[in-house]
Amino acid sequence: MAKETFVEQIADIEQDFPQWYTDVVLKTKLVDYGPVKGTMVIRPYGYAIWENIQKELDKRFKAQGVENAYFPLLIPMSFFTKEAEHVEGFAPEVAVVTVAGGEKLAEPLAIRPTSETIIGTMFSKWVQSYRELPMKVNQWCNVMRWEKTTRPFLRTSEFLWQEGHTVHSTAEEAEEATMTMLGVYKEFAENCLAIPVITGKKTEKEKFAGAVATYGMEAMMHDGKSLQAGTSHYLGTNFSEAFDIRFLDSDGTHKTAFTSSWGVSTRLIGAIIMTHGDERGLVLPPVVAPVQCVIVPIAARKGGVVEACESLKAELEKAGLRVAFDNSDNSPGWKFNEWEMKGVPVRIELGPRDIEAGKMLCARRDTLEKGEYPLENAVESVKALLDEVQKNMLEKARKHRDSHIVYADSMKGILDGVEGGNFVKAGWCGCRACEEKIKEETAATARVYAEGETAEKCAVCGEKSKHVIIYARAY
Amino acid sequence: MAKETFVEQIADIEQDFPQWYTDVVLKTKLVDYGPVKGTMVIRPYGYAIWENIQKELDKRFKAQGVENAYFPLLIPMSFFTKEAEHVEGFAPEVAVVTVAGGEKLAEPLAIRPTSETIIGTMFSKWVQSYRELPMKVNQWCNVMRWEKTTRPFLRTSEFLWQEGHTVHSTAEEAEEATMTMLGVYKEFAENCLAIPVITGKKTEKEKFAGAVATYGMEAMMHDGKSLQAGTSHYLGTNFSEAFDIRFLDSDGTHKTAFTSSWGVSTRLIGAIIMTHGDERGLVLPPVVAPVQCVIVPIAARKGGVVEACESLKAELEKAGLRVAFDNSDNSPGWKFNEWEMKGVPVRIELGPRDIEAGKMLCARRDTLEKGEYPLENAVESVKALLDEVQKNMLEKARKHRDSHIVYADSMKGILDGVEGGNFVKAGWCGCRACEEKIKEETAATARVYAEGETAEKCAVCGEKSKHVIIYARAY
Repeated sequence: MAKETFVEQIADIEQDFPQWYTDVVLKTKLVDYGPVKGTMVIRPYGYAIWENIQKELDKRFKAQGVENAYFPLLIPMSFFTKEAEHVEGFAPEVAVVTVAGGEKLAEPLAIRPTSETIIGTMFSKWVQSYRELPMKVNQWCNVMRWEKTTRPFLRTSEFLWQEGHTVHSTAEEAEEATMTMLGVYKEFAENCLAIPVITGKKTEKEKFAGAVATYGMEAMMHDGKSLQAGTSHYLGTNFSEAFDIRFLDSDGTHKTAFTSSWGVSTRLIGAIIMTHGDERGLVLPPVVAPVQCVIVPIAARKGGVVEACESLKAELEKAGLRVAFDNSDNSPGWKFNEWEMKGVPVRIELGPRDIEAGKMLCARRDTLEKGEYPLENAVESVKALLDEVQKNMLEKARKHRDSHIVYADSMKGILDGVEGGNFVKAGWCGCRACEEKIKEETAATARVYAEGETAEKCAVCGEKSKHVIIYARAY
Repeated sequence: MAKETFVEQIADIEQDFPQWYTDVVLKTKLVDYGPVKGTMVIRPYGYAIWENIQKELDKRFKAQGVENAYFPLLIPMSFFTKEAEHVEGFAPEVAVVTVAGGEKLAEPLAIRPTSETIIGTMFSKWVQSYRELPMKVNQWCNVMRWEKTTRPFLRTSEFLWQEGHTVHSTAEEAEEATMTMLGVYKEFAENCLAIPVITGKKTEKEKFAGAVATYGMEAMMHDGKSLQAGTSHYLGTNFSEAFDIRFLDSDGTHKTAFTSSWGVSTRLIGAIIMTHGDERGLVLPPVVAPVQCVIVPIAARKGGVVEACESLKAELEKAGLRVAFDNSDNSPGWKFNEWEMKGVPVRIELGPRDIEAGKMLCARRDTLEKGEYPLENAVESVKALLDEVQKNMLEKARKHRDSHIVYADSMKGILDGVEGGNFVKAGWCGCRACEEKIKEETAATARVYAEGETAEKCAVCGEKSKHVIIYARAY
């Protein structure tokens, strides 16, 4: 089958990855630009991915005893100033409401860039005794950070996310909660998004404004750059002290509580696109794909074809699969290209001869391989195929990632490494100056500490290395 | 069992309904006041109701071919001025962002009070040909309307809702979509929330700013006042003309499209509370209750009781029920009161003698009746009981509503009617002056047209009646 339209319209993924990304997100109708600079409209095909992400994450949160709630969008500006680092980090990028109901407000209100301050205020009111701890809440909401350079899903002024916030009676328990949620994110990223991630602690420079420690989840994109796909923060007593979150402990004394917070956002959709996409467009992992399998009729006008497709669709849907039947006027070749661009994991072709032979042709999006399967056990076959696609996508991404991790012991080594599209592991003395020098000279940043690894010298200053850092250019 | 604590803490529902409402929403932890005046925090117990509402509505929307999407929060102020009535209705109550990222914005941005303008802008870009129509999108999001007098769930500056927006090639189809969604709301309100509703057209004075026609769904609260629980708007070409939503029709000519929009909000939680609540607190309909049944152990320290409760809980949960097991240190009587206040539809009491006899005691929240059921078919019994509670709640609310609808043919009749806690049906000449006079003299407003009914004279001016209107005081 000769290639038609579509594929040609997407920039070459190897030649111009940024343009490929823009082409793919717009042409597959995942997203559109909003009227205000830096905003995005998440279109139904993109939002359906987000709904599947929400569903999968939400059940994991609930299994951890987390309850959903909703806190106000607008936060008095004065709340931010209560935590010194926090205000420094977020005040410069907030959007501020100064007029409401036709009147100038006495105090300007920030649109939440994150909600530690307002949730801390409520925790202070709700937490009385150790009996109520731990308290674990999460909200699915929109947040706003006024960014100068924006790209759909990756960095926009407004985005959707979830932010979990927990309160504990001891530091150990709060730290454990921080790490547990990081683990939940990692398991979810790997098993649902087929994205292998490296988790680890962030440097002081890269941590969340107001945290004692931030742990990040880093994923390698097609071009070797890193995307921070989620973070979990141990906040110690920083916010509890600022917002007076205290409790009566079992020993009869009042104590300051310990808190954590953690979040992932619609950025994850960008991660999926840039981890798995290829020259034909999107490749979506079955667990979160809006359409898991598309049925394309061959010689649809022949008697019985449409009926057979519809009956197969009904059978697959009854088994809980998300199925499309493309009965449009376009040619099969055009349909193949379109659904490949849209990244649908499995395509089923069904024509008169297949039906007669009691077979269907299934094409996998990940490997582009085709195979014949009996129509009889269609549900089992398709489910097994989707499982295989899901697993293979993770393995493929893992191989790509693992073959792009290099070691360096000099600035040049780091530069060569990241220019070659790699994550670079290198020793670090621990000082901020060396970290900043790397950023200046290589445009790479410290992504996370490489846990358990050691090096002799700092790649920058040659002093004794205290930690091994994973450096990468990042989105 | 003597009454303990709790119940006494709620104001008397008959003596002081507003205070009862405030007591109940705060003490059952549905909601809390936010730090900014007029805002609310939806706490886990309240948010869980919203999640169940979302789940039920969302599947109904999807069955109608509606797809979810997400549009930006911030709308340029200039968008509002494109539709003359719309700007007049909404501009006075918007919250406005004037500063972002540390700089004064060239154009102030409104936080969406509703999204016709920004979605219309996107529709204009997306709709090209009749082939793409109808286009049906919905978003679950927060909106903001700066209100002077606020009450949790009923009227707050920020609230959560869904807003559906559709585009059609003909007026008939858009009108049909408007009515279809009104029907979906009504079916949902009755079958899921157990709230009988009256649907009908709104008067010109009461319609949505920018609509050709607004249809409302009105529910009678415990005190006989009405609560507008949802609206569906036929927008004609008002927004299509303002935002240039045009399409190439099958006849080769360009035409202006027709649109509709429809929404319900977290107000529905207020409707549930005020329709079903009683002197003991909340009474929640099983379909949306966060906890459908609570197990209270009797003589919990006796051997086997806790185990039997836990095993019953597991069995009920496996069948898909939402179950709590209250194994706290409080007395059974205290627990009964607390869970009654929280409105849990069914309470199961399980003690050593019940276990020995293979029985459980079930208490219904709606009628307070108790009955014994075999432990063996617990799932079936509890499910049947929940169904019965759900049905009975609707019937009870319907009886209350129907016995509080009266007819009037004079201003005094209308006043007496609404002061007696009734909906009042009365003839109307159709002029704005009479409608406003009723509001001035009785504090009642025209809720909806009573379809198919006729009257001789307008209750105000005595002229020939054109319509029968349902008047009520409203939240």
